[in-house]
Amino acid sequence: MLSEILEQPQAVARVLDRGRDAAWDIGRRLRRAGVRFAVLAARGSSDHAAILGKYAFGVHLGVPAGLAAPSIATLYGSRLRLAGAAVIGVSQSGRSPDIVEYLAAASRAGAVTVAVTNDPSSPLAKAARHSLFLHAGEERSVAATKTFTTQLACLYLLAAGWAGGKRGEDLLAELRGAPEALRRALEEGPSIASAMSGLKGLERCVVVGRGFPYPVALETALKLKEAAGVFAEGASAADFLHGPIAMAGRQAGRSFRALLLLSRGPGLESLRRVSRRLAAAGVARLSFGPDPVPDWISPFPLAARGQLAALRLALAKGLDPDHPEGLSKVTRVR
Amino acid sequence: MLSEILEQPQAVARVLDRGRDAAWDIGRRLRRAGVRFAVLAARGSSDHAAILGKYAFGVHLGVPAGLAAPSIATLYGSRLRLAGAAVIGVSQSGRSPDIVEYLAAASRAGAVTVAVTNDPSSPLAKAARHSLFLHAGEERSVAATKTFTTQLACLYLLAAGWAGGKRGEDLLAELRGAPEALRRALEEGPSIASAMSGLKGLERCVVVGRGFPYPVALETALKLKEAAGVFAEGASAADFLHGPIAMAGRQAGRSFRALLLLSRGPGLESLRRVSRRLAAAGVARLSFGPDPVPDWISPFPLAARGQLAALRLALAKGLDPDHPEGLSKVTRVR
Repeated sequence: MLSEILEQPQAVARVLDRGRDAAWDIGRRLRRAGVRFAVLAARGSSDHAAILGKYAFGVHLGVPAGLAAPSIATLYGSRLRLAGAAVIGVSQSGRSPDIVEYLAAASRAGAVTVAVTNDPSSPLAKAARHSLFLHAGEERSVAATKTFTTQLACLYLLAAGWAGGKRGEDLLAELRGAPEALRRALEEGPSIASAMSGLKGLERCVVVGRGFPYPVALETALKLKEAAGVFAEGASAADFLHGPIAMAGRQAGRSFRALLLLSRGPGLESLRRVSRRLAAAGVARLSFGPDPVPDWISPFPLAARGQLAALRLALAKGLDPDHPEGLSKVTRVR
Repeated sequence: MLSEILEQPQAVARVLDRGRDAAWDIGRRLRRAGVRFAVLAARGSSDHAAILGKYAFGVHLGVPAGLAAPSIATLYGSRLRLAGAAVIGVSQSGRSPDIVEYLAAASRAGAVTVAVTNDPSSPLAKAARHSLFLHAGEERSVAATKTFTTQLACLYLLAAGWAGGKRGEDLLAELRGAPEALRRALEEGPSIASAMSGLKGLERCVVVGRGFPYPVALETALKLKEAAGVFAEGASAADFLHGPIAMAGRQAGRSFRALLLLSRGPGLESLRRVSRRLAAAGVARLSFGPDPVPDWISPFPLAARGQLAALRLALAKGLDPDHPEGLSKVTRVR
């Protein structure tokens, strides 16, 4: 897990170099086809990358996007009407049966389909009309790390390619800052390790973000669950005051921490408010960020810190993060 | 909270009687306008009703639907391109500022807008071109119960009206079974109370569903947080095997339970698999359902049991479910 975490700056840079032309080509086709909305289909970590894709399409392109409930097609067998849609399947292995099946159904229903996967020969790549590849090499760790950030790089590249022209080049220029931001975040490894070694007793954690850091909160919570067996939940600062805040006060002090993910964006003030409310409720807090990068790029360094935290916490607890109990690499959901 | 929980059979029946014509009228306009996709905007409990709306539109109409990230418009100020979309805002009070703002932006962007709210004079009703009302009377409990099920009834009614014709009438006939299903679930009150009085020490809970019961798992987890201060998380059986299962084994036995929500649908087998995996990991389980109703109607009786469980658990813990710490009725998110 650690070696894959550390590969990320190079892995993301590779996606940006090798995927640029394909992303621009797919973007041109999406514009020509007059695509009006996007549906993203994914599970697990890929789902969190997909939510960030949805934000990027919305914020940078004004294109409404939603997450597929693959069960609608695969469990209930409904025929979706997807003319005018881009349907993007995101799966490291390209072998999640329900994502493959959803993409195949979407192609039949008239959507322009795109696969984002690590394996060019996978069923997902074959089911989709277009593909963007992670170029991440084999991922051996059960907890996805480099494939999360390379999936994100692919989706962001697609947003830039879809924008095209000057706007697309500007977005690409910002995106090219991601590897360096990852590098700087990974330099915090020792201080994260030392913080986690003091938190051996951590059993419960709520991870809070707003805007682009919010899906990273979901992803970080998943890493904490997978690698360190912590009962962790990701929450939006916006929803947090709707209910989780009541629970947080009750859980305070008892092996419980709140982790706040900060970015230089319009959500920052909202995180500061949550932090004050948590402090008043007696909840101990940790925070990551903000990094000196544009808000939409902040998920790269924030996610990397979360991965390191989960890994180091697992080791502090005497767990083996490479072999979490009860997990396997490809989840076969029907 | 209890009196509002018990009002639900009548409240849902009232929505179906009073809202039918409006839903058919809006449905006709959506068909005429050639609407191709739907975006739902909501927060908290309303968000869970909205996800069920998304499932109903997908399963019964083949219409792709997604949940808005209101922050895309309200935090990042992006102009969404929403021609060809139905945008549906769901808010009990009709006063959640970011939902109101999102609906107003959607109207300007060319969407057909619909408000689902309890207050006909609310800013949300004014911002939308069409409205469906909850007719639920004043809701005094901080934890939404009757407004969750009446919102759901409105969204399901809209799905039926949008289908129209024979199909719409068939869906409406099934929907008319919801009040009776709620009534039968509420009759389990004493046995739920007795189960919860034996679970005073419950501090962590994972609530699992698949298909239509999945959003109810999210809603039940929120009730357990709000009313009983439990660290509860809702999960899809499909995602559960991606990570939460690892955490569940580690948490087993320590004031931890898994609650499985069952329905007579294609997701049932998947829940049985999760149950076997949890049993193997030594996790104690509770389950609600399956009820003798069509799968898409099961959220009504499942949600009612979850509300009762949260209420009874709060009382068993000596908490006041009507005045949870740190929560207020209208959440002002910007």
